[in-house]
Amino acid sequence: MKLVLVRHGQSELNLRNVFTGWLDPELSALGVKEAHAAGEALKAEGILFDTVHTSVLTRAIQTTYYTLNSLEQLYLPVHKHWRLNERHYGALQGLNKAETAAIHGDEQVHIWRRSYDVRPPKATGNTFDRRYEDLDIDHLLAGESLKDTLIRTMPYWEDHIAADLKEGKNVLIVAHGNSLRSLTKYLENISDEAIPDLEIATGEPIVYDVNDHLHITNKKILVKKTFE
Amino acid sequence: MKLVLVRHGQSELNLRNVFTGWLDPELSALGVKEAHAAGEALKAEGILFDTVHTSVLTRAIQTTYYTLNSLEQLYLPVHKHWRLNERHYGALQGLNKAETAAIHGDEQVHIWRRSYDVRPPKATGNTFDRRYEDLDIDHLLAGESLKDTLIRTMPYWEDHIAADLKEGKNVLIVAHGNSLRSLTKYLENISDEAIPDLEIATGEPIVYDVNDHLHITNKKILVKKTFE
Repeated sequence: MKLVLVRHGQSELNLRNVFTGWLDPELSALGVKEAHAAGEALKAEGILFDTVHTSVLTRAIQTTYYTLNSLEQLYLPVHKHWRLNERHYGALQGLNKAETAAIHGDEQVHIWRRSYDVRPPKATGNTFDRRYEDLDIDHLLAGESLKDTLIRTMPYWEDHIAADLKEGKNVLIVAHGNSLRSLTKYLENISDEAIPDLEIATGEPIVYDVNDHLHITNKKILVKKTFE
Repeated sequence: MKLVLVRHGQSELNLRNVFTGWLDPELSALGVKEAHAAGEALKAEGILFDTVHTSVLTRAIQTTYYTLNSLEQLYLPVHKHWRLNERHYGALQGLNKAETAAIHGDEQVHIWRRSYDVRPPKATGNTFDRRYEDLDIDHLLAGESLKDTLIRTMPYWEDHIAADLKEGKNVLIVAHGNSLRSLTKYLENISDEAIPDLEIATGEPIVYDVNDHLHITNKKILVKKTFE
């Protein structure tokens, strides 16, 4: 089976160098191009998907749409779930990364961004909407470490994505830098010490071959051309 | 509850005056504008939907996307099913409507287009793809009357749309001229004799209020502005 991960294209807040997390910007014009190109790259590979999973955030759903449109597989079922959302960045959400570094120092910002188990400062305001009305916000989502993200992503992997693969389906996942980093940590058995070094590029499909035991037997990255 | 019907925006084949049916053109540039406008009109009504149903045809899925994007409710679950597809136009699919009238006469074409229970000539070639691999094509889909369309749409209404409404959900359906005409015939108890006169405009949301017994208590059409 094929398991393909795509990180959403550039968003309006990526463009402005802002900690985004569960904030909900749209794709930038470049992000739309990246999503189209991801679909074209997958079409060139000739992969016929059976099902698609994405988050409930606009930039991931927009990327899913443009990718499937270019892939000519818009008719596929698309499942949207908050467990594939970006890591919740707590009080950092909406802050400019450079300004935050000027206040707290580069080292602290690097720890917040790349460490495995350090949480950001907790969010105080409630920016949640109807998408999240069933969640226990205080406990789960006022600010997550990558480890927290992995822990809340895993039930969705088990119940839905792994279940699809076990049925022999080819699965496309369109999600976010850190929800995909946490999934990759699990899939590739990356250590807590090594995970800070893992980067996933926007709009660049990662194509895994998966065997019946759900082990990865091959990994191929469809490197994107430069748009800018 | 609210039940809203939207007919997809203009497609590339509508633009060329071709019998489309289960052929799978994309939206035209005008069709994209119509879909955006439908979403803006629904946003102005302040309707919060809970679920969305559409067909497996590209023009309906594209309309769903642009409508939900403008409505700012992209995160909703979208269910795609062939039972909401356009009426299958048999051997007429792909033919120009004016050329067909020149050959068979205006009256015959009017009967094929608007009568309730007359089928088009049967399709001979097989244009079906993996979307339809589980269907009994010979029996069901080599050419449908509006009555055939109604009969194959109803199980989806019962099992999914009516079921959602009974749970108190607000439901959006994005589909096609004839799958929506058949649904409207059922919802509004339109007679076989009167149904030829029912037209549904592209990209113009029809907003029904529905009571607990799934009876229509109000109907409002969000008339579109002119684009051209």
